[in-house]
Amino acid sequence: MPADAIAAIAGRVRRTPVMTSESLNRLTGMDLVFKCEQLQKTGSFKFRGASFAVAQLPEDCPGVATHSSGNHGAALAAAAAARGFSADVVMPENAVVSKVEAVRAYGGSVHFCAANQAAREQGLQALIEQGKTPIPPYDHAHIIAGQGTVAMELLAQDSRLEDVVAPIGGGGLLSGITLAAAQIAPGVRVTGAEPAGADDAARSLTAGARVSKHDPETMADGLRALIGVRNFDVLAGHHIEVLTVTEDQIVEAMTLIWRHIKQVVEPSGAVPLAGVLANRERFAARRVGIVLSGGNLEVAAMLGNL
Amino acid sequence: MPADAIAAIAGRVRRTPVMTSESLNRLTGMDLVFKCEQLQKTGSFKFRGASFAVAQLPEDCPGVATHSSGNHGAALAAAAAARGFSADVVMPENAVVSKVEAVRAYGGSVHFCAANQAAREQGLQALIEQGKTPIPPYDHAHIIAGQGTVAMELLAQDSRLEDVVAPIGGGGLLSGITLAAAQIAPGVRVTGAEPAGADDAARSLTAGARVSKHDPETMADGLRALIGVRNFDVLAGHHIEVLTVTEDQIVEAMTLIWRHIKQVVEPSGAVPLAGVLANRERFAARRVGIVLSGGNLEVAAMLGNL
Repeated sequence: MPADAIAAIAGRVRRTPVMTSESLNRLTGMDLVFKCEQLQKTGSFKFRGASFAVAQLPEDCPGVATHSSGNHGAALAAAAAARGFSADVVMPENAVVSKVEAVRAYGGSVHFCAANQAAREQGLQALIEQGKTPIPPYDHAHIIAGQGTVAMELLAQDSRLEDVVAPIGGGGLLSGITLAAAQIAPGVRVTGAEPAGADDAARSLTAGARVSKHDPETMADGLRALIGVRNFDVLAGHHIEVLTVTEDQIVEAMTLIWRHIKQVVEPSGAVPLAGVLANRERFAARRVGIVLSGGNLEVAAMLGNL
Repeated sequence: MPADAIAAIAGRVRRTPVMTSESLNRLTGMDLVFKCEQLQKTGSFKFRGASFAVAQLPEDCPGVATHSSGNHGAALAAAAAARGFSADVVMPENAVVSKVEAVRAYGGSVHFCAANQAAREQGLQALIEQGKTPIPPYDHAHIIAGQGTVAMELLAQDSRLEDVVAPIGGGGLLSGITLAAAQIAPGVRVTGAEPAGADDAARSLTAGARVSKHDPETMADGLRALIGVRNFDVLAGHHIEVLTVTEDQIVEAMTLIWRHIKQVVEPSGAVPLAGVLANRERFAARRVGIVLSGGNLEVAAMLGNL
């Protein structure tokens, strides 16, 4: 499936570069390769899955819809616009202004709702009843296949990789990478990383059953979603391990990426490096691919201290 | 001279990528191409000039020396180490810790001195008397030629450019770019940009005589140096204009680069974009190359607000 996706979205999606840093490798004693999805269109890997899902729709599609507080909304709006479709995005009324602006900048229509899951689903249901095609953020075969193209590219860009580490929120990215690696490079080990304050994936995989409720508390806003059903099944079926990291470890990893790779990543995007550095023995003497998943954050607030 | 330099430093210096952003172009109504010297080894373009200057030294060179509070020290240390030479760097005792660490990380020896120009020159003089070869940061033909390789690459990477805009502190980068463009693409217009609080270059060029004293006040620490003698002569001889920008405009430009290009740049590196946005009529309907000169800053301080 990821192989189909890579052909379908070629030309729409950016083939993002990989970066390395001698100084970071020297400092950490590791061999790290970064896949730069913060440089993907719309600023995150989400554009891949959205583009593949939208590519499957018929020409006479009456428009797409989703609910999102984050990167999926903007990615879907951009992917829909590329095919001339409308995109309606239900967003909680407490959504970050820059995320709302991003959806609109890519041509999407924003519908505000109360800041709870029921209201979001109700808002989306109303759009479905108007005939819109729902495109969920992660629990969807096309989305999973589209996100898997990250690994298809990465493993082609660096044939010496022995590990790929990616963050997990709902699991679209990690399950896509798992399927892609199994298909094209089964010797490569795939590992997930998530905040200890949103460890539903780690708990689900340890228990062998999907946790269906949680109360996430983490600065990594992109990883607060609950692991999806299809996503859990893929990860459990491939015996994927998920590492958990503290908030301090996330800040430390983000600092290292900014300082040595010179890339702006959001907290979610720094979680895999945090996981690697907190589990050095697991990755010692191995060449490790790390997915920087996105770079959308409120920059202005951080510049306050300059 | 830049053409000699590009051959001499090939393989030592990174050919940095160029980046563009559809969203930034849409937002600003401009056509901007960014040359990413924050991704250069040691985190700034300074490694180019240092590498070319060091490449000219004889095999039996007894080591190099300089005084620096910033990126030149680390760049020279790294360039010297690549040829197996020692590097001694005189640094003011109030230098930023990360800059001191960078010099040492690249194998340089740090000699602290009082935080004034006389003490710095005295410290360097002592090293010269020990037989070390001084490599100044900008007022030097090899340094200028080395920095000019930024433009040799950029103009080869994008043949449609009509403008190149670069920051000016001492003027090594801007004079190098001026000579390179004159040589390989005389139709391309070169423009400098500097903080209004360190506008010695603009004042010098307007007056037709080099200002030899100033009292800089700007967050762009890389641009506080006084324009050099050779550098002034090149810029005056080619009728280069220098735009000045406010501190607020620097912060705004830095924010845009972080948000849209996802690149960590230091304040100095954001000054050219600030100059372009403050002088839109000058650049309207033209394809403008902007040099992101460096990405070394104190990241930790900025993460305080997360």
